[in-house]
Amino acid sequence: MDNAVTMPGSDLTTIFNQLSLIGARPGEGVTRLAASAEDGAARAVFAAWMAQGGARIVQDAVGNQFACFDSAGEGSPWIFAGSHLDTQPRGGRFDGTLGVLAAGCAALDLDSEIKNGRARPTHNLAVVNWTNEEGARYQPSLTGSSVFSGALPFGDALALRDGTGISLGDALAAIGVDGGTGRIPPRPEAYVELHVEQGRTLAEAGRRIGVIEGTWAARKMMVTWIGRAAHTGPTPMADRRDALLAAAQGIAAFEAVIAANHPHLHRSAARLVVEPNSPNVVVERATVWFELRGLDVAELDRAGEAALVAFRAAASGTGTRLEIAADALRPPANMDSQLMAIVDETARSCGFEPLAMRSVAGHDAVALQNSGIPSALIFIPSVDGIAHHPDEFTHPEDVQAGHTVLAAVLRRLVQGGFHAG
Amino acid sequence: MDNAVTMPGSDLTTIFNQLSLIGARPGEGVTRLAASAEDGAARAVFAAWMAQGGARIVQDAVGNQFACFDSAGEGSPWIFAGSHLDTQPRGGRFDGTLGVLAAGCAALDLDSEIKNGRARPTHNLAVVNWTNEEGARYQPSLTGSSVFSGALPFGDALALRDGTGISLGDALAAIGVDGGTGRIPPRPEAYVELHVEQGRTLAEAGRRIGVIEGTWAARKMMVTWIGRAAHTGPTPMADRRDALLAAAQGIAAFEAVIAANHPHLHRSAARLVVEPNSPNVVVERATVWFELRGLDVAELDRAGEAALVAFRAAASGTGTRLEIAADALRPPANMDSQLMAIVDETARSCGFEPLAMRSVAGHDAVALQNSGIPSALIFIPSVDGIAHHPDEFTHPEDVQAGHTVLAAVLRRLVQGGFHAG
Repeated sequence: MDNAVTMPGSDLTTIFNQLSLIGARPGEGVTRLAASAEDGAARAVFAAWMAQGGARIVQDAVGNQFACFDSAGEGSPWIFAGSHLDTQPRGGRFDGTLGVLAAGCAALDLDSEIKNGRARPTHNLAVVNWTNEEGARYQPSLTGSSVFSGALPFGDALALRDGTGISLGDALAAIGVDGGTGRIPPRPEAYVELHVEQGRTLAEAGRRIGVIEGTWAARKMMVTWIGRAAHTGPTPMADRRDALLAAAQGIAAFEAVIAANHPHLHRSAARLVVEPNSPNVVVERATVWFELRGLDVAELDRAGEAALVAFRAAASGTGTRLEIAADALRPPANMDSQLMAIVDETARSCGFEPLAMRSVAGHDAVALQNSGIPSALIFIPSVDGIAHHPDEFTHPEDVQAGHTVLAAVLRRLVQGGFHAG
Repeated sequence: MDNAVTMPGSDLTTIFNQLSLIGARPGEGVTRLAASAEDGAARAVFAAWMAQGGARIVQDAVGNQFACFDSAGEGSPWIFAGSHLDTQPRGGRFDGTLGVLAAGCAALDLDSEIKNGRARPTHNLAVVNWTNEEGARYQPSLTGSSVFSGALPFGDALALRDGTGISLGDALAAIGVDGGTGRIPPRPEAYVELHVEQGRTLAEAGRRIGVIEGTWAARKMMVTWIGRAAHTGPTPMADRRDALLAAAQGIAAFEAVIAANHPHLHRSAARLVVEPNSPNVVVERATVWFELRGLDVAELDRAGEAALVAFRAAASGTGTRLEIAADALRPPANMDSQLMAIVDETARSCGFEPLAMRSVAGHDAVALQNSGIPSALIFIPSVDGIAHHPDEFTHPEDVQAGHTVLAAVLRRLVQGGFHAG
């Protein structure tokens, strides 16, 4: 990155359009998988942009980037704001990226105010880009924020492998992230994240600002059926143990049983790995990633048990063996109520009537909150709720609303902080 | 390949063990996908081995290798024998490779007899390694033999793409096969192929030699369901158009409807490509490779139509769109009856009582026969019928039987030829 290049300063539209080009293809949205070359390019632009604005750039060993404004001085407490720059394959431009860049713009403007004597910081501020929020390339998702907050050991994160066997550590090293650099800021007093809703609740309620009370719970299961490779032609049907047939029956039965008994739970099977995946070889191994999401943990338990019954039936009907490689419950999170009140109050002072709402999906703010860092999550509407798709879109006036509220919340927190009740 | 290395001559066990190491991993069988580095290494060993035995090595533009023994002189007709050196992923050692190497050993011994004056050739002999018989990396299978016999244009074959988008032409170029080299022999008067059975018919009948009368027909369908990418969390269930759910229902219904109405047809869905294949994105595209195999084309037609009904139901039930990307019938082949009689008679003269039988799978001999080149296919037993699996095995005494009969058939054909009735 050439530091002589003129960066766009705190104009959100300009920096957003610039970032949106990285990993973009016409008609296919943006693909910036975690620790890919495209992710590396986005990181470099983010770092150069923030550095030009006066920030001190550091990163930790899992690749989380911190653009630090140490205005309050060493030893002062910290406020963090941010989100993530990685995307899904053929994802949208707004998811994650908007939260990082809006926080960056707010930080630059606030820093100017501080330098001009119009604001007096009691807290330092860091704009954060968390590594692998999406979980598209590496599972589990929310990797960087979970490592920072202590829920996931560094070494476990770096040892995660993608579908081709490349570890997160090696992938990060390949884009130049090889160990931490510089003084990483300590756990902050509060974290604030702006994000697009990925649903239609705000639009249907006619609101521009959502204040997230908490999230749904999720049960995520990774299930493998193991059969036996054989020729698809001569092998007698009675001799076959077809892992793909088992997986297909498992996926179909999962949807049928949950739709019938728990219709309001969100559920999916969205990733499937088949081996050897040759048209002429009966499938030996088929692994499926299932998700169940809902508010009520007891109901998720019952639904998950029903799913396991369906998976076992698919195994016994096909002569395959079932392995539950992972079965993890992500409990429902409750965001910090005092911080929520600050966001609500600030939004009203900016002229918006916020909607208190729940998030179905996890976000970095949820990972931090669950590990004891008071966190706020602010939503703005997304058109038709389209997410993880090239057509994802948020109207400029909604982006402006989110940017305004985020900046006002940060201005308040940096001048006086926040003490969890 | 260093020509100073001592090659194993016509000892089948030695050359077979040597070839079996190429692409082998402990417990995982042999992986020599067509036009891979491993396939390139196998080709080099085959060429060096045959060249050291006195053969003239040429290859055509699709990579078919011909080890030519021009003993009868230019202008004389040709006999071909061979099979293929490519394998399935984690495949067996015998499938294809045994046919090439047994033909090579027979050719070397026959050439010695000719040079010693103990045999008088009327026909030249070529040992052939056909490119991409398996169809694991590139579909359709039987690529090289179909190109040679005129059923598949050269250009179409070279333009085939693997799952990662690499063309067969580029993959061949990467292992040094870039255009044909030398005088390719003309269409032969006859082709003979030795192959392991991949079924249990011979073992159950207590026979060592099978003479193939013909093959089953096959209907191969490549079917895509197209939905819409969306977040697996917040997206309302009613809004989802899940292509993997459609594919799963399609695969499950395909098996159910064929098992109920056409239980003696062999059927499979063995390859599935899912996009974007991220755990957090509702699947946008799922493509499945289906096969139906049987003797009766009219029944395959009916079964195929029933399958299409099931596929359409899966599409309409999930709000996805169905595309039939390919739907091809491979008609049942009948091998050349006069050549069959020669094989039968020769086998008996060697002390074996052959079994006339049908092959479920296609083989290079079938591709040639279907294009008007009289061809014979000789089977030897495979233990438990295991095929396309690391445990594939044929007992040494059965290998010896096949080698003996193949050599005797070639000795007869090269001294007097064969004139299709």
